[in-house]
Amino acid sequence: TTKKVLTLPGDGIGPEVMRQVKRVMDWMAKKRSVNFEITEGLIGGASIDAHNNPLTDETLADAMAADAVLLGAVGGPKWDNLPFDIKPERGLLKIRKEMGLFANLRPAIVFDALVGASTLKEDVVKGLDIMILRELTGGIYFGQPRGIEERDGVRFGFNTLVYSEPEVERIARVAFDMAMKRDKRLCSVDKANVLESTVLWREVVERVAKDFPEVDVSHMYVDNASMQLVRNPKQFDVMVTTNMFGDILSDCAAMLTGSLGMLPSASLGATDKNGARKALYEPVHGSAPDIAGQDIANPLATILSFAMMLRYSFNMSDDATMIETAVQNVLKGGLRTADIMQPGMAKVSTTVMGESLISE
Amino acid sequence: TTKKVLTLPGDGIGPEVMRQVKRVMDWMAKKRSVNFEITEGLIGGASIDAHNNPLTDETLADAMAADAVLLGAVGGPKWDNLPFDIKPERGLLKIRKEMGLFANLRPAIVFDALVGASTLKEDVVKGLDIMILRELTGGIYFGQPRGIEERDGVRFGFNTLVYSEPEVERIARVAFDMAMKRDKRLCSVDKANVLESTVLWREVVERVAKDFPEVDVSHMYVDNASMQLVRNPKQFDVMVTTNMFGDILSDCAAMLTGSLGMLPSASLGATDKNGARKALYEPVHGSAPDIAGQDIANPLATILSFAMMLRYSFNMSDDATMIETAVQNVLKGGLRTADIMQPGMAKVSTTVMGESLISE
Ligand SMILES: CC(C)[C@H](C(=O)O)[C@@H](O)C(=O)O
Ligand SMILES: CC(C)[C@H](C(=O)O)[C@@H](O)C(=O)O
Repeated sequence: TTKKVLTLPGDGIGPEVMRQVKRVMDWMAKKRSVNFEITEGLIGGASIDAHNNPLTDETLADAMAADAVLLGAVGGPKWDNLPFDIKPERGLLKIRKEMGLFANLRPAIVFDALVGASTLKEDVVKGLDIMILRELTGGIYFGQPRGIEERDGVRFGFNTLVYSEPEVERIARVAFDMAMKRDKRLCSVDKANVLESTVLWREVVERVAKDFPEVDVSHMYVDNASMQLVRNPKQFDVMVTTNMFGDILSDCAAMLTGSLGMLPSASLGATDKNGARKALYEPVHGSAPDIAGQDIANPLATILSFAMMLRYSFNMSDDATMIETAVQNVLKGGLRTADIMQPGMAKVSTTVMGESLISE
Repeated sequence: TTKKVLTLPGDGIGPEVMRQVKRVMDWMAKKRSVNFEITEGLIGGASIDAHNNPLTDETLADAMAADAVLLGAVGGPKWDNLPFDIKPERGLLKIRKEMGLFANLRPAIVFDALVGASTLKEDVVKGLDIMILRELTGGIYFGQPRGIEERDGVRFGFNTLVYSEPEVERIARVAFDMAMKRDKRLCSVDKANVLESTVLWREVVERVAKDFPEVDVSHMYVDNASMQLVRNPKQFDVMVTTNMFGDILSDCAAMLTGSLGMLPSASLGATDKNGARKALYEPVHGSAPDIAGQDIANPLATILSFAMMLRYSFNMSDDATMIETAVQNVLKGGLRTADIMQPGMAKVSTTVMGESLISE
């Protein structure tokens, strides 16, 4: 079967890491019974430069038509001073919203070979494997009204945090499903002692929990969650939270691992009646403009994002696991890109890391 | 001169740690030229039990009339299932709002003697000394409209994040003043790539910065800030941010130190024409109901909160430093309450810790 994959390399190191993923895809096409029809589009700064628009209708239409989208990274200082409405980030937010990608999966995993890269003590993070589920198309990111206005001579800036029951319910279901496939523990993070929107959130999570009696569900306030991630991250299995809290906590969790350049993510839509769902995969790291074009960026997060694509979009878990194992083995073999370099290891380029992964 | 101090022991370990602070106050009254007129009031669960109200008008009036307020802690499982509007937390939020305590100072300090208590590696946190300034009476905590409503048969929960220019300006000024007294570096944390309210925030901080040319000011997105706190917290001197972001980041920063039981906080209002300002001081830790009444809680965070009172409300910096030094010395001497116990140290009770501090 042919899988239609739209790649959006984006800005900074996006294009060069994407090149390595394409080699993995080529390898898969040759060696496994799968065919990728790969197209490429523009997003973020690259699209602003070409079309004065961080996400054109054409790219969006291509994304909607694809079986899965793989994104590199967006943004950079070149576009930092553009007005709010046409910044690179708008492209990312718009594609998430228009494709209905409400479920953002952000694993925080410590690879055995890289445990020393964490700023946390080894015993605190060794073996860490958390999955953070972030709601991605609602909450304060998209709530109306929003803006900056003058009232009686005073300027106000405002945003609206809003969740409906169905919005909470669908992300909660994804979270419980995920917990069932893992260690059956789910922690829902809210601020129900202060925010009514998250009182509703908690209520809905409690209700959905009744359909998953095997899952051990708990609730934690977001301030406590940010402490607990630092104190003892291994207490968590799956965490589910709002768009804004998820943005903050998933980055904190990512940094606990000490190796941002290794972390993938998936953003999934609802499953349609044929079992298909819109999906976008991207590394957690940014566009790293300071090192772009030097062939020193770490391609593994994007390659692992592609592995997530195999697992969640194409039902090819075995192949996903194969890639993940290859990544572990390459690390065990002592190869490191600059960002994860350690004493005694061999520092390699983006290209060599890609090649070594393929040999492996 | 006589200083009118209202103590609000609150719930859980609040009363027992407060008892130790009172001994320090008594000592000060005897040995230094200062007199404390100490009154006591109810807040949180203690007030709910007595008056069915987490903060009565009477306590609030006492707080307004005091020169400074010292709070223990509020909340506990006993009151967890009360409706949103009469939970212990309401008392805390109301007293902050009614007293106009917009500037919340949350130092995150690693005491040399306790550097091993952190889950982070010693070189990452040794000598850490950050001051987080959290806006405390605005933002999404208090914005209107808010609530849970049904529209066309669907329930929605919503809150409003709103900041006016004057609200941002006054907290920014406190932050710049603070930076001037420290290492002259200020990092303002926002999410200006997504939230218009924080576009305004950033704009105002930039404007206020012009009045403090000596301060090196930077801006950071909140997700990045939560990463940077874990990656390299010592890069920060003063951080300033919104109510909600400050809640999350200051707890994360507190946990970096590994010794929550040591961290004080201050919440300050505007300075009036006589140079006086409303102020409330409280430890960062909670009411710890699981260990309440056992004389094992750590009284040092509350004692250090009292030291902050001396510094910020009574202009008694030397005495504040004396107490802070005494705390360092007691730790150096090897005394530890259970929460900060380390191998080879002497485990002591709340009372003994208070006594030892006074001897010191
Ligand atoms: C770039 C930005 C708009 C985005 C977000 O806040 O969602 C990013 O931080 C992320 O987490 O993917
Ligand atoms: C108890 C709660 C309402 C409070 C807050 O969110 O402000 C607490 O977490 C704090 O930080 O003082």
